[in-house]
Amino acid sequence: MDQKTIPDIVVGRLPLYLRTLQRMFNEGQSVTSSQELGERLGISAAQIRKDLSQFGEFGKQGTGYSVDYLLDQLKNILKVDRVWDMVVVGAGDIGSAIARYQGFADRGFRVAMIFDNDPKKIGSQVGSFAVQDKATMVEAIRAAGIVVAMIAVPGLQAQEVVDELMKAGVKAILNYAPVNLNVPDGVHVQNTDPVTHLQRMTYYLD
Amino acid sequence: MDQKTIPDIVVGRLPLYLRTLQRMFNEGQSVTSSQELGERLGISAAQIRKDLSQFGEFGKQGTGYSVDYLLDQLKNILKVDRVWDMVVVGAGDIGSAIARYQGFADRGFRVAMIFDNDPKKIGSQVGSFAVQDKATMVEAIRAAGIVVAMIAVPGLQAQEVVDELMKAGVKAILNYAPVNLNVPDGVHVQNTDPVTHLQRMTYYLD
Repeated sequence: MDQKTIPDIVVGRLPLYLRTLQRMFNEGQSVTSSQELGERLGISAAQIRKDLSQFGEFGKQGTGYSVDYLLDQLKNILKVDRVWDMVVVGAGDIGSAIARYQGFADRGFRVAMIFDNDPKKIGSQVGSFAVQDKATMVEAIRAAGIVVAMIAVPGLQAQEVVDELMKAGVKAILNYAPVNLNVPDGVHVQNTDPVTHLQRMTYYLD
Repeated sequence: MDQKTIPDIVVGRLPLYLRTLQRMFNEGQSVTSSQELGERLGISAAQIRKDLSQFGEFGKQGTGYSVDYLLDQLKNILKVDRVWDMVVVGAGDIGSAIARYQGFADRGFRVAMIFDNDPKKIGSQVGSFAVQDKATMVEAIRAAGIVVAMIAVPGLQAQEVVDELMKAGVKAILNYAPVNLNVPDGVHVQNTDPVTHLQRMTYYLD
């Protein structure tokens, strides 16, 4: 529908608003303002009002936003009013850390399976998961109907893994491998290569 | 100087160009074009030409870019023609994975120290590092002149860690904690909360 018309950069800010609102909610706060959100996030109040207004009327002039109402609305918009099962590919240091990460709980995600192709890792325990054989991955993902994956394999293996994930029906990939991935239209990728983040900062340093 | 006039979103694309050029170089390729870079990265050729032209004249119409020349120029612009020592704060799953990450080598960064405040972790080995007591962190960072840090501590501890890093003279922080950090002007933060990345994608899913 009209979600196509909303710039992805705006969509990208919504999870930050949600995260901050959740923290306010957890701290017992019931009302907030675009000013307060802006100060917490380093984003202008005007930008926040403009972003939110693209999705509806969530606050009243002078009254501000109801924290739990806006929280619910943002969860709904971002579709994390449900829980998405995820698959982790790669049981090395990074993949294992992600599979054990406690921060997904209550934020819309749950790791459901972890795969590797290393015989020494297959069958070993990572957190509460036994590492499964990557040879069985496509079938397992398809059977479970999982559409969200996190890739933590070496760069040279990443595209091959992606091609398999496409066969399995995956639609969203969080990519920890330091390479660009080619995916068909309609499949979403977010990259999280620590080095590109760091280089974006060293540009500004002396 | 005039670097202030270049939008951060442009700066943020340079590490992607660098990464792709490095891969081309490693594969023995000597010349490329904005078209080829664009296809590899899913960015338009016009955007790439425009981005690069902000920093100088790197290619010739019809001849394209020399891979190793452009590589050197980008390393210089991003200041990764040197090696930045980094400190990791937090020796949990994520912090340990980062400290052991092999992907920093040859990309301008090197982990130099890792700290934690947990007596059970202090003194334990993470990769080639002994975890140091966070109580000694400010002094150690200052003495070593380190200005780049990665934070992988629980959300509720992150701001306190940041405040200490400021005292130690840190100027750039890669933040793995799922909270927004407050830093003074002139200090740079990049956030890499996997959940915000995932939520940015589930928005588009059915």
